[in-house]
Amino acid sequence: MSTYLTILGFNSAIPTINTSPTAQLLEMEERCFLIDCGEGTQVQLRKAKARFSKINHIFISHLHGDHCFGLPGLIASFRLLGRETPLHVYGPKGIKKMLDTIFTITETHRGFEVVYHELDKDYSEKIYEDNRVEVFTIPLDHRIYCNGYLFKEKPKDRHINMEEVSKYSEIETCDYHNLKAGKDFVLSDGYILKNEVLTTTPAPSVSYAFCSDTRYLESVIPIIKNVTVLYHESTFLHDLKEMADYTGHTTALEAATIAKKAEVEKLILGHFSNRYGDLTVFTDEARTVFPNSYLPKALECVKI
Amino acid sequence: MSTYLTILGFNSAIPTINTSPTAQLLEMEERCFLIDCGEGTQVQLRKAKARFSKINHIFISHLHGDHCFGLPGLIASFRLLGRETPLHVYGPKGIKKMLDTIFTITETHRGFEVVYHELDKDYSEKIYEDNRVEVFTIPLDHRIYCNGYLFKEKPKDRHINMEEVSKYSEIETCDYHNLKAGKDFVLSDGYILKNEVLTTTPAPSVSYAFCSDTRYLESVIPIIKNVTVLYHESTFLHDLKEMADYTGHTTALEAATIAKKAEVEKLILGHFSNRYGDLTVFTDEARTVFPNSYLPKALECVKI
Repeated sequence: MSTYLTILGFNSAIPTINTSPTAQLLEMEERCFLIDCGEGTQVQLRKAKARFSKINHIFISHLHGDHCFGLPGLIASFRLLGRETPLHVYGPKGIKKMLDTIFTITETHRGFEVVYHELDKDYSEKIYEDNRVEVFTIPLDHRIYCNGYLFKEKPKDRHINMEEVSKYSEIETCDYHNLKAGKDFVLSDGYILKNEVLTTTPAPSVSYAFCSDTRYLESVIPIIKNVTVLYHESTFLHDLKEMADYTGHTTALEAATIAKKAEVEKLILGHFSNRYGDLTVFTDEARTVFPNSYLPKALECVKI
Repeated sequence: MSTYLTILGFNSAIPTINTSPTAQLLEMEERCFLIDCGEGTQVQLRKAKARFSKINHIFISHLHGDHCFGLPGLIASFRLLGRETPLHVYGPKGIKKMLDTIFTITETHRGFEVVYHELDKDYSEKIYEDNRVEVFTIPLDHRIYCNGYLFKEKPKDRHINMEEVSKYSEIETCDYHNLKAGKDFVLSDGYILKNEVLTTTPAPSVSYAFCSDTRYLESVIPIIKNVTVLYHESTFLHDLKEMADYTGHTTALEAATIAKKAEVEKLILGHFSNRYGDLTVFTDEARTVFPNSYLPKALECVKI
């Protein structure tokens, strides 16, 4: 039950033979979240051997084509594959009207419900929560309304130390819930068994922040503070800072600055302009500020 | 100035790693026509080394996703590549509303005009004509309003036989127009120079008919009579004739029957259901009726 990230595509704007527009698959605590869905995402999902039926939540950052033009085809394929379970789509206001219009005109009948969660706030809000995971928006500053998303594992239950627990006949299965929650156990003679003896520490809860597309934006920092992995767009190198500002993007240097100020563990860069051939120039620039900066590898499944 | 067909994708419904939905590039008399545009067509065009800027006319058969979900991305890419010349889009009524809605919501600003030619007739009509090429609709019978398209080279000019023409000083350049049109030349002494001496016969005009998707439909036959190449969908083999009728498709046997009755020169099958692995079963079945039946080869440029 670890968290895995598969970056399906990380290029900006125009799909080419070897590059795909933005899409990511985040598997967190057995939930399967699709983040953005550029054209061709369904084929990338197949290459990644993802099970379509496990994707129940799709998060769209913004309604530019390279982040959402794969949605109609993916949803149509869900239906052709016999899907029945509801699909939750989170994205900017307007996404429902766009998809509804497409599905009405193309007579794409669905055997399942699409539940839209339209976003229009300019502050971070919790948009998803279950017993193990929470998802928050990260308001960004692009040419069009845009959110990043923060995915957080909730604090995990402590693990029962069966060897220790089995020594005490008074501890019953129904007590495990309290033990997992970190409580001590009081024996009938009043003796207190310390929780740290009866349980072991679980793996730390991890978090993942996805930030694309945006101008350099310091208001992001408190929201993503200390995340395990930050994916931050860096469409340009810093010598094109002016172009980055004009088009609503970030430079590699700026992305690294955000990572450093937010004290994240690891930075993955992405959304590179097609003008660059050798992408190592991005990590070269970012590492001058934040050494733990990396390039994405398409379709590689990375443990977070 | 021959005519070439590149089949970019020929599978039905769901794109997979190795198959693409329907899209074809027809280069006829230096015009470049895109026929249908399933998701991923722009990448297939790149693989075919097609020049995006040469595509000025797109013909969409019907508004099911596997025939049109590549359009928004392709048009967005045209704009990113700096296109300025108008783009003509022919397709069923509704295509304008769908694309306009998408482009408005995704704020896809265009630096060029998209001229929509919406179709709603149930009879064949000429929808495009220039000095060399004509295009007609082929009304089909699918689950949704659908047209095939017939592309015809107009009768070609005869070629000037310079060796012969140069023998007569009376024949001037301004006379070539009449010679190319097949007229004899009358010398000042009244002697008639026969056209077949002064000119040579051009290559015959070819035609191409694209029929996808449709139930078996004999009203197609007079429209496509004697075409050089017919592409006709054959989603199923004939043992699934009932399924074909129910879903609005044709079997390989039926496609071959249409080809035979229309006395076409060559039949290319396509739009195969994903249930089939080895596609030679389609030509095996079709050739029992029409021997000159072939499977498409993705991205192969074929002279018509």
